[in-house]
Amino acid sequence: MNFCSHCAHPVVLEVPPNDSLPRYVCSSCARVHYENPKMVVGCIPLWQDNILLCRRNIEPAMGLWTLPAEYLECGETAAAGAARETLEETAGVVANLQPYRLFEITHISQIYLMFLAQLQSTAVRATDESMEVKFFQEQHIPWDSIAFPVIEQTLQGFFSDRVRHDFSFRILRVTTRMKSPGQ
Amino acid sequence: MNFCSHCAHPVVLEVPPNDSLPRYVCSSCARVHYENPKMVVGCIPLWQDNILLCRRNIEPAMGLWTLPAEYLECGETAAAGAARETLEETAGVVANLQPYRLFEITHISQIYLMFLAQLQSTAVRATDESMEVKFFQEQHIPWDSIAFPVIEQTLQGFFSDRVRHDFSFRILRVTTRMKSPGQ
Repeated sequence: MNFCSHCAHPVVLEVPPNDSLPRYVCSSCARVHYENPKMVVGCIPLWQDNILLCRRNIEPAMGLWTLPAEYLECGETAAAGAARETLEETAGVVANLQPYRLFEITHISQIYLMFLAQLQSTAVRATDESMEVKFFQEQHIPWDSIAFPVIEQTLQGFFSDRVRHDFSFRILRVTTRMKSPGQ
Repeated sequence: MNFCSHCAHPVVLEVPPNDSLPRYVCSSCARVHYENPKMVVGCIPLWQDNILLCRRNIEPAMGLWTLPAEYLECGETAAAGAARETLEETAGVVANLQPYRLFEITHISQIYLMFLAQLQSTAVRATDESMEVKFFQEQHIPWDSIAFPVIEQTLQGFFSDRVRHDFSFRILRVTTRMKSPGQ
C-alpha cells in the first residue's frame, strides 16, 4: 500500500492514536487503512465413502489436487460460499454442510473454514478452475500431489476422525509452509 | 474506494476477466482491490456462574454493555485475539478458550467467532475501552442496554445452552439490525 484509497495522498506506516500496532495512515486525510486476515471457505464433498478432489487448472499449484475452497465474499454466508465454490470448481451440488475445521494460517493471515458436505449426485465434471475432478477412496489419495498443507491436514484429519466416528468441530493451526515449485 | 492504493490512479467498479462480481479495478495498473468480510473474535468470560460484561467507553454504543470482542489482527490466532481483547477491555486474564459460536452478519460483512473462556481470577477493572466492568448472574443481565444484537444473541444462546448442558459449536446468522441511537 502506497497511497490512500480515499484521497490518493501517500500513506505512512505508523501507530495511530489509541492503537498499539502500525497501520497505513493517510498523510493528508488521516484515514487509517486496516489490514485484516481473510477467510477462505471450502468443503470435503462426500459421496458414500468417496471424497471428490479437484486438480487445479489455475496457479498457484496448477496441476495439483485440492478440495473446493475460495475466499468468502461480502454478503454471503460461509456455507453458501463453500457450496458456491464446489459448484464452480466441480459442477457438483452439495447439501447438509456441517462445520468441521477452522484452520488458522497465521503466517499468511488466512483462516480456512472447512465443512463436511454431502454431494447430491455424482454429476461432476472438469471446469475452468479444475482440469480434472475425481472421486477418491482413502487408499488412493494422491498424497504426493496435494496442492496446499491446509488441504493435506484437512484430509488427514478426516480419515483419522472417520476411524473414531467423531467429526466434532475443531480449531487447528497450520504451520507447514507451501512447497516451492519443483520441490 | 476512489483511488488505487498502489499507484494512486482512479479505480473503476467492474467485473474483472474470469470473475463474476464487480470489484474495484485500477484504471491504470489494472490491480484488482478485493473487499472481504472481516472477522471479529471475542469471548464470554466466565467466573463460576457469573459472566463478565463491559460497559463501552467508546463509540459506537458508548455506555452500553458488551462482551470483549474486536477485529482479529493479522498474524494472531483467534483464541489469542479473544484473550488479548479481554485483557485490553477488562484487565482480566482468560484461559481454556473453547470455540462456541460463529455468527455471520452478512449485511455488514462481519463474522464473529465467540469462545467460552474461564477467567483466572476476579482481578478485573475499568480500562480505556470500558467505563465499567461487572460480573452478572443471568437474572441481572441488563437486556435493555446490550450494545449489539450479536452480543444479545450470544448471551441468550449461552443461557439456553446452560440449561441443556450442551455448548456445542454452532454457526448462526444475525439478521437483527442495530438500534439507532435514542431508540
